[in-house]
Amino acid sequence: MAVQRRILIIGGVAAGPSAASKAARTNPDARVVLFEQSDAISYGVCEIPYFLAGEVRKDDLMIQTAETMAREKGVEVRLLQRVESILPTRRAIKVRDLSGGRVYEEQYDRLVIATGARPRRLGLAGEDARNVFTIRSFDAALALRSYIDGERPQKAVIIGGGYIGLEIAEALQIRGADVTILEQRESILHDLDEPARNYAQDLLRTHGVKTVSQAVVVALPVDATNRVTHVLTSHGTYPADLVIVAAGIIPETTLASAARIRLGRTGGILTDHRQQTSIEGVFAAGDCCEYRDLITKRPVFAPLATNANRSGWVAGQNAAGGRATFPGVLRSLAVRLFEGQIARIGLTEREAREAGFHCVTETIVSSSRVPFMPGSAPLSVTLTAEQETGRLLGAAFWGTEGAVLRSHAFAVALQHSLTLEQLQKIDFAYAPSFSPLWDPLLIAANALEKKRSTGTRR
Amino acid sequence: MAVQRRILIIGGVAAGPSAASKAARTNPDARVVLFEQSDAISYGVCEIPYFLAGEVRKDDLMIQTAETMAREKGVEVRLLQRVESILPTRRAIKVRDLSGGRVYEEQYDRLVIATGARPRRLGLAGEDARNVFTIRSFDAALALRSYIDGERPQKAVIIGGGYIGLEIAEALQIRGADVTILEQRESILHDLDEPARNYAQDLLRTHGVKTVSQAVVVALPVDATNRVTHVLTSHGTYPADLVIVAAGIIPETTLASAARIRLGRTGGILTDHRQQTSIEGVFAAGDCCEYRDLITKRPVFAPLATNANRSGWVAGQNAAGGRATFPGVLRSLAVRLFEGQIARIGLTEREAREAGFHCVTETIVSSSRVPFMPGSAPLSVTLTAEQETGRLLGAAFWGTEGAVLRSHAFAVALQHSLTLEQLQKIDFAYAPSFSPLWDPLLIAANALEKKRSTGTRR
Repeated sequence: MAVQRRILIIGGVAAGPSAASKAARTNPDARVVLFEQSDAISYGVCEIPYFLAGEVRKDDLMIQTAETMAREKGVEVRLLQRVESILPTRRAIKVRDLSGGRVYEEQYDRLVIATGARPRRLGLAGEDARNVFTIRSFDAALALRSYIDGERPQKAVIIGGGYIGLEIAEALQIRGADVTILEQRESILHDLDEPARNYAQDLLRTHGVKTVSQAVVVALPVDATNRVTHVLTSHGTYPADLVIVAAGIIPETTLASAARIRLGRTGGILTDHRQQTSIEGVFAAGDCCEYRDLITKRPVFAPLATNANRSGWVAGQNAAGGRATFPGVLRSLAVRLFEGQIARIGLTEREAREAGFHCVTETIVSSSRVPFMPGSAPLSVTLTAEQETGRLLGAAFWGTEGAVLRSHAFAVALQHSLTLEQLQKIDFAYAPSFSPLWDPLLIAANALEKKRSTGTRR
Repeated sequence: MAVQRRILIIGGVAAGPSAASKAARTNPDARVVLFEQSDAISYGVCEIPYFLAGEVRKDDLMIQTAETMAREKGVEVRLLQRVESILPTRRAIKVRDLSGGRVYEEQYDRLVIATGARPRRLGLAGEDARNVFTIRSFDAALALRSYIDGERPQKAVIIGGGYIGLEIAEALQIRGADVTILEQRESILHDLDEPARNYAQDLLRTHGVKTVSQAVVVALPVDATNRVTHVLTSHGTYPADLVIVAAGIIPETTLASAARIRLGRTGGILTDHRQQTSIEGVFAAGDCCEYRDLITKRPVFAPLATNANRSGWVAGQNAAGGRATFPGVLRSLAVRLFEGQIARIGLTEREAREAGFHCVTETIVSSSRVPFMPGSAPLSVTLTAEQETGRLLGAAFWGTEGAVLRSHAFAVALQHSLTLEQLQKIDFAYAPSFSPLWDPLLIAANALEKKRSTGTRR
C-alpha cells in the first residue's frame, strides 16, 4: 500500500479525528498526521450548551487529546499548525506553525479536508465587541463560560432562533439571565413542521424566554468599554449585556476553493459517495462538505455532528485504501429544550412540497405510555407521506418523554422507502410502562394512511 | 353487503372487542354482537401487575364497558352469555344465558372466535386452594388484589419464571411480601438471550426476590382452612401464604375443536393471512390462534396483547367484508422489572440456531446518553444476524433508560429483512441528552458486522 503511506488530515474537531482514527485503523502501516490550527482537538461541540449551563464540566468536553490520539489511535496530531494552502499538483500542503511562525510543506499520498464551518457574520460594527460571542469553537465556549461566570449577565440577546440559539437560550436562562431570541424569519426553528415549532415556542414562553420573529438586526451600538449596550432591530430595541450571534454557519471552503477543488450548489465541497473531491486522492468530510439528501436526492448543507463523524469515517477508510460509501443524510435532528424533546427526520411538509412531492400530512397526539400509567405524558407526531404511493417522506416527534427515540424507528423506515401501509404492520414491543398498546408510531401511520387513502389532498 | 349483516364475536377481552369495533366501523350497516361469559369486557390484562402493586386503580383497567361499546362503537355486548357450541352448517352458535339459565341459538353471517387462552394447570391437589391464584382474568385479578389487601401475605411463591411471573413478583415485593419464583427450566425468562436474562436475574436479586431454577413443583399441601402452607419441589420446600400459578397459558380452542375447525401445530387455531379459519366465514383472532413468525416463517404461539389487537382488527375488518391481512409476528416483547427495562424482538440466538440459521451474535454495552451527561445509564444490546447475508434475525435491549424504544427501530429493520450493513448507515437523530453520538443501535450493528465479515463463527 505504498501510495497510502502518508495520509494527512486538515481539521481536528469532529470529521477530522474520525477520519484520522479510521484511516489508522484501516491501514496500520500508514503514517496519519492531523493538522489543527487551535490548541485543542476532538471536543464535544454539541455539549457546549450544557457546559455553559453548568451541567457538564470542561474536561467532559474533551473527547480526545493529541496524546490519546497518538497512543490509542496511532495518529500524530500537530496542534497550532495552520494549513495555508493545498498544492494538489505537488501532493503537498503548506503549513504555518503558529507557535513559532515557521512555514513548511508536507507531502501527502492522500489528503482529507475537514475544515468545518464558520459562523455567519452579521456584517455590523460592534460584532467583535467584548460581550458578543459565537459558540462555534472550544475557545469561544471557554471565553463565553468565563464571561458568564465573571459578569453574571442579566440581559442576554441571542441573534438567531435555530436549534443552537435555543439551546444557548436555555443555558443562559438556567444561569439566571433574562433571555430574548431574535429571529429574522417568520418563526424560530424554521426547519421544523409547524406543530413541533409551536411546541418549542410554548416551552420557551413557559420558561420566560422571549422570542421575537421577523426581527432583522440593524445595529449593535457599543459603549466606551467596547461593549454592546443594546441590539437595534427592525422590530424594536433590546437592551443587552450579553449578545450571542447564532445566525447560522457556512462551510469553511477557503483552502479547498483556492486549490480549485469543486464546490457544490449549496456552497459546500462537492464529493462523490466515497467522500472523494473533484481531485483524485483528496477527500473531504464534515461541515465543509455538502451531502446528498436521501429523500430529495439533492445536495444539502447539513452541518451536524452525526454527519461529520460518519462522513469522516468513510473519508478516512477510503483514504487508507478501503472501499466505504456514505449514502447521504435524512437531516435527522434532535433537540432538548428544557423538559421537552423534539426530533425531526426526513422532510417537513413544506420541504416536501418545495421538493415537488404531492404529499399528505397529519399530526396526532397520543401518549408516551398507557395514559393512566404513572409518568405517562403527551407524545405528538407529524407525518408527511407521498400522496400517490404512501411512502413516508418525513416526520417530527415531540413531548417530554420518548419522542427522540421513537424517531429512530421511522429513520429506518425513511432510509428504506417504506410506506405507511408497511409501517402500520410493524410488530413493536409493548408494555404499559413504555407505550400505549398501539404505539404513537402506529397511531400516526394509521391516521395518515386513512387520510391518504380517502384521497384528502391538502 | 347482505351476507355480512350479522357479525357475531365470541370473547370480550382483547381480540374480541378489537374485532367487533373494527367490524362495526367497516360496515356500519352490520349488526355486530359480542358474547362474553363473564360480566366484564375489554380490560387491560397487561396492567394487572400494576393494579396489584397499587400503581393504577381498578377503574383504569376498564378500557370499554358494554355501554361504551354500544354507544361509541355500535357494538351490542351480551355479558354473562357463554357460547356452548358453534354450528357451522347452520351458521349459528348456541348460547347459555348464565344469569337466567336459558339456552338459545343465534344466527351469523360471519363469526369471529376470540376465546383467548387459559392458564396451564399443574395437575396437583391444592391448586384450587383459597390462597392459590392465577392472574389471567379480571375476576382473578380482583380476587388476588382483595386477598393481598386483606391478608397482607408475607411469603409469596410464584410458580413460573416467565415475564408475567416476574411482573407479579415485583408487584408482590412492592406490597411487602418475601417473594420466591420457582422455574422448572434451567433459568427464568427462557425466551431471552442469556445476557438479558442475567440482567433480569440481577435486578431480582438486588430487590430481594429469590429465584430457584430447575424446580419442579410436586405438591401443594393444604391446611384445614384449605390454604396451601408450602410448595414442595424437586429442589426443596418453600413456605407460602400466597401462591401464584404463572406456569404459562394454552390456547382456548374447545369450541373451535368441537366444531371441527382446524388447529395448527402449536395447538392454536389455524388461520390464513386474513384470519379466516378452515371454515369459510368463520374468523379467529388473538391468543386462541397461532400466528406466523415473520423470521422463521413457521407457526408460533405468541399470546400478546399487541398480536391480539392487531389480529382482531384484521378479523373484524374481513368479517365485515374488508380485505385486510395480518402478516405475522416478530414475537416482540417488553418487560419493566423494577427500574429496568428489557425488550426482545425477532429470534434469540438459540431460537435462530434451532430454526436452522447459521448465525453470529454479539453483545455490546453502551450508554443511553452521552456518558457524562446527567442521567446517562448503561444500555446493552444483543444482536443476532445470519452469517452469510448479514440479515438481522433478532435483538435484545436492556438497561434503565431507552432500551424498549430503541427496539422499535430494529423491529422495522427485522420486518423488512435489513442487513447489518444497511443498519450501520441509518441517520438517527442525535442530541447528547438522548444518545451517544453513535447510538447503541449503530455500535451494536458495527460490532456484529465486524465479527461477521471477519468470519468468526460461534
